[in-house]
Amino acid sequence: MSKSKIKQIIGIIGGGQLGKMMILEAKKMDFEIIILDPTLDCPAHSIADEHIVANFDDQAAIRELAKKSDVITYEFEHIGVEILKELEAEGYNIYPTPKSLEIIQNKYNQKQLLKEKDIPVPDFIKVSSREDIKKAAAKFGYPMMLKSCTDGYDGKGNSLIKSEEEIDESYQTLGAGDNLLMVEEFVPFSKEISVLACRSIEGEIVTYPIGQNDHQESILIETKVPAKITSTIKDEALKLGQSVMNIFSGVGIFCIEMFVTEDNRVLVNEIAPRPHNSGHYSIEGCITSQFANHIRAIAELPLGTTDLVKPTVMRNILGAGSQGQANVVGVKEVLNLPNARLHVYGKGVSRPGRKMGHLIVTANTVDQASQVALKASELVKIEGR
Amino acid sequence: MSKSKIKQIIGIIGGGQLGKMMILEAKKMDFEIIILDPTLDCPAHSIADEHIVANFDDQAAIRELAKKSDVITYEFEHIGVEILKELEAEGYNIYPTPKSLEIIQNKYNQKQLLKEKDIPVPDFIKVSSREDIKKAAAKFGYPMMLKSCTDGYDGKGNSLIKSEEEIDESYQTLGAGDNLLMVEEFVPFSKEISVLACRSIEGEIVTYPIGQNDHQESILIETKVPAKITSTIKDEALKLGQSVMNIFSGVGIFCIEMFVTEDNRVLVNEIAPRPHNSGHYSIEGCITSQFANHIRAIAELPLGTTDLVKPTVMRNILGAGSQGQANVVGVKEVLNLPNARLHVYGKGVSRPGRKMGHLIVTANTVDQASQVALKASELVKIEGR
Repeated sequence: MSKSKIKQIIGIIGGGQLGKMMILEAKKMDFEIIILDPTLDCPAHSIADEHIVANFDDQAAIRELAKKSDVITYEFEHIGVEILKELEAEGYNIYPTPKSLEIIQNKYNQKQLLKEKDIPVPDFIKVSSREDIKKAAAKFGYPMMLKSCTDGYDGKGNSLIKSEEEIDESYQTLGAGDNLLMVEEFVPFSKEISVLACRSIEGEIVTYPIGQNDHQESILIETKVPAKITSTIKDEALKLGQSVMNIFSGVGIFCIEMFVTEDNRVLVNEIAPRPHNSGHYSIEGCITSQFANHIRAIAELPLGTTDLVKPTVMRNILGAGSQGQANVVGVKEVLNLPNARLHVYGKGVSRPGRKMGHLIVTANTVDQASQVALKASELVKIEGR
Repeated sequence: MSKSKIKQIIGIIGGGQLGKMMILEAKKMDFEIIILDPTLDCPAHSIADEHIVANFDDQAAIRELAKKSDVITYEFEHIGVEILKELEAEGYNIYPTPKSLEIIQNKYNQKQLLKEKDIPVPDFIKVSSREDIKKAAAKFGYPMMLKSCTDGYDGKGNSLIKSEEEIDESYQTLGAGDNLLMVEEFVPFSKEISVLACRSIEGEIVTYPIGQNDHQESILIETKVPAKITSTIKDEALKLGQSVMNIFSGVGIFCIEMFVTEDNRVLVNEIAPRPHNSGHYSIEGCITSQFANHIRAIAELPLGTTDLVKPTVMRNILGAGSQGQANVVGVKEVLNLPNARLHVYGKGVSRPGRKMGHLIVTANTVDQASQVALKASELVKIEGR
């Protein structure tokens, strides 16, 4: 899009649903897209200009992607950061920056930096043995949360410890010392909210209307926007979101998950340096979606406005039935509902609990949208056969 | 999407910007797409699952497309209808139906049917010689419009005759008898408006908020929505749009262009049996875009609501400079404007006047949106090099 080139080429590490939704926005402005993903029929495959079929730890393949692209980005945070740092040092454009990724990848380091910068977070302590965990219990009491510092997602890598008897099982579950571990105080929260924020290379920041999240078995099931929070909480959360973006010098979309405690404090829970499931509502809910702004940010273009078009609810469609070839049923029934949009990721294989698609419903009120979304989620199924 | 198949496959004849925008919507629901287009790097190429590179009159190629697809559609109306009728008779699904396409392809037959069904149209007469044209003048007076009955678009195929002296030149311009011709009375109109309507296979119809069109040198330059018309005119236009859809048993999106005359009559000017340039505003202006509803209709899915999200203006970006490799300039400047979205079609070659992209601007009022859109169109250029 620059004056010297016909097309800007974006390389994306990962060709899952987030990559796919980035491409659907990028193609509106005719970017050329190369993905790197080990799965031949991954969701982004059919709409990418080129697909480098390689594992995410294939450094030669990542180097090939960088060479072919004007800028590279990624759709998930569990990437070896060394090769990215190496490529960045050689002058390749990588956003979000490897430095911000490196800190965020390790939840302990992530939280430590936030704490140093006076961002309120649940209290935490590094642990490396059963004994350490017992000591943490003396400090935090039960329940408390044992977390793997790296590689967690959708609740994987987290284990709630409700009593001393459960320490051993949780410790075993999280690798019995094979992984870096931390213990976090359990925060009795009244709401979990997401602040999506996008920061440009020059430091311009936009934040999105705050979403309120519901989980089922630690997997996000629904995001309601706007969140039902007071304007004080809202202002505090948006301010925290902006601070976080500046602390990490984040470029592109970040999701900052927060707890609103029962005594109305706002604590930062976790940061994802990428478009996030709780931001999917923005595709049809906002003037500029999280994916569109991510593309704009990494392509050095001005960010778009994030106004909410209407109250919006996003509901995930998780794999039902058994593991097998994905099959979608109930499409007609869902599309008969008012203002319901269906997004199907196109994963070849469905597994119980796997994120297979989502619904976005807009309405005059969040409650109305939520009712329709719930009904829709009962009508549509993506199941393995 | 049916219970018996994993993916429904849509074949599209034409891989231009309309095909591309259909695919961007279809991919949200994970349809598989095959395009047929002679140009290897056509706008839809990079996001289609398969591209049959063939001329539009290549009957074997169209047959191949039909065999591979569950349903075929098209992005322009100048296709040989015989092969489509043949395929339909063999049981292939083709929407809009070849029968409706056949009538619409010939403007005389199109108008004749409308007239028979009491749809108000400008008066017209078939002509085949200079003498006939002179006779028409006796009936309609000057100015009057000489039209080629087939193959016209963007003003091509139309020639305004202002006096008897101009008859010969217009006759020569339109092929001197090689084409079927008609003369139409010249209607002094105050506004040209578009009614987009979508009809399902079962006959459900939705209509879109009416757009008001401005042309420059017979090429659409801007569509403002909602049109500045009285509610009486609006109701009349929407009713006509619905009637037209039923008359043609149209399936999918049709655009019905109309004149609002100086004495406040509404006349149907022309019908396009496909998504239309004057409906691009719906991508970011409506809950369900014209492309999304077209896909829903031909895939036998329920149609989506067409509510206008905000007042919206679409402005075309026509090729500037000279003919040559397309180059986009001014992207940053445009995206700095409030609520301006840029769509670049990705045509390899730009030619003066060629449709290369468009801008969509939403605002609190149409006038505001129009001002921003005008400014945006002055900032962005797609020019040949």
